[in-house]
Amino acid sequence: MSGGVEWALHCCVVLTSVREPVPAARLAELHDVSPTYLAKQLQALSRAGLIHSTQGKSGGYALTRSPDRITVLDVVDAVDGPSPAFVCTEIRQRGPLATPAGACTTPCAISRAMATAETARREALRAVTVADLARDVESDSGAGTLSIVGAWLRGPAG
Amino acid sequence: MSGGVEWALHCCVVLTSVREPVPAARLAELHDVSPTYLAKQLQALSRAGLIHSTQGKSGGYALTRSPDRITVLDVVDAVDGPSPAFVCTEIRQRGPLATPAGACTTPCAISRAMATAETARREALRAVTVADLARDVESDSGAGTLSIVGAWLRGPAG
Repeated sequence: MSGGVEWALHCCVVLTSVREPVPAARLAELHDVSPTYLAKQLQALSRAGLIHSTQGKSGGYALTRSPDRITVLDVVDAVDGPSPAFVCTEIRQRGPLATPAGACTTPCAISRAMATAETARREALRAVTVADLARDVESDSGAGTLSIVGAWLRGPAG
Repeated sequence: MSGGVEWALHCCVVLTSVREPVPAARLAELHDVSPTYLAKQLQALSRAGLIHSTQGKSGGYALTRSPDRITVLDVVDAVDGPSPAFVCTEIRQRGPLATPAGACTTPCAISRAMATAETARREALRAVTVADLARDVESDSGAGTLSIVGAWLRGPAG
């Protein structure tokens, strides 16, 4: 998993605090990260339809839908792609005792075990939304934390 | 996840079919893979204590314990290491609204969500043993499949 997932999730959480589009430079300043690096994650979120950008003087990025309809899995897939970590290369079809390709109509036992674990991981990521994360941040850091972030994001660039 | 996990799991499954140590070259021949490449996975399994090697004319690799006491997670951790895919870099401690380090005594909401998913994946990998995989291979390919593999592994090198 790339480090971009962490940045993308943080951006989604702070974007729950504002209705107005937030310039990418402002998100980068909030997180003290290179705007060029953050732009890559924002573009991935945008391509996946989780945020959209508006151009112009008051342009920037905003969530495209309610944060309770954006899951952590949506963000992970947007940034890292939906490819599973384990890729079966059909080892059973190799060597002197190879299973004939025609007999390999279903995934092998090893591939199934790995797929079950991947599904468990994805279900856990799907079970948490950006709205859940925002609630947890408020619970951790105190009610009003995201209002302060929102006010800062709307304020004049530093 | 590295491709080595798939090779290592296949080796563990076929090693359930023999009591005698199997030379690394024989395992490589069975799987039609470079002995040098396979040696790397076998060394990882050996370092983790899942297989052990004996030297000499009839030397080779064997499982160190009953296959029902070797989980898929054991093999994955042996080959790829136990490091989680997601690494939290404490983004909350950055920038103008940073949470002071002293207030970050527990993982942040995002880190917790990712850890929960990682735990779900690991639990699923821990729930399947090499003995389960061997049973599934027999169930998929017909009873006696692993006996044939075992006879081949014990036979003279080709």
